Amino acid sequence: MITEATKDVTGEASLERVLHALSDPVRLRIVTALADKGERTCGSFDVPVTKSTCTHHFRVLGEAGIIRQRQVGTTRLNELCRAELDSSFPGLLDTILQAAAADRP
Amino acid sequence: MITEATKDVTGEASLERVLHALSDPVRLRIVTALADKGERTCGSFDVPVTKSTCTHHFRVLGEAGIIRQRQVGTTRLNELCRAELDSSFPGLLDTILQAAAADRP
Repeated sequence: MITEATKDVTGEASLERVLHALSDPVRLRIVTALADKGERTCGSFDVPVTKSTCTHHFRVLGEAGIIRQRQVGTTRLNELCRAELDSSFPGLLDTILQAAAADRP
Repeated sequence: MITEATKDVTGEASLERVLHALSDPVRLRIVTALADKGERTCGSFDVPVTKSTCTHHFRVLGEAGIIRQRQVGTTRLNELCRAELDSSFPGLLDTILQAAAADRP
């Protein structure tokens, strides 16, 4: 019998959540930019979506444990949780980022 | 409905599609079983879902170019498109399978 399909994943990076979060082209682009250029403000990403859609994408990435946000004055900064991801899923982020780069020459 | 039995769905693999297809625990389990044990019939997978849900999962995996299906008499066999995936996204499938295995000790 299989019970783990209903395993509670709240609050923790689960593999499925990480894969789902990265299965969207805009979120993949946000993560690529964070990996390339480090911590950035929400408004600094070159993505073809409205601000509210962008906010949704940041939320999905945050809930998956891929990014964290911190407030500095009136500015919200986004950072990749690289160490945590590399620890939980060795090689996964790098492999996906390489595949994304190869997919969009 | 069942017309994809003979449909070759490989070659259309996009990274986002592959990640989306693998972002579901049941589909991840199907792919793990195919990687471990090779070509198998649809009914041979130990997954906690109905037959029609299972059919849906096979369709998503096929459309993402992760599996192909072939009909042998009255039996439909599923096979992982490992070579195609490894060629399109080097290391991706193995990294995800390793992460999945580590996630479910």
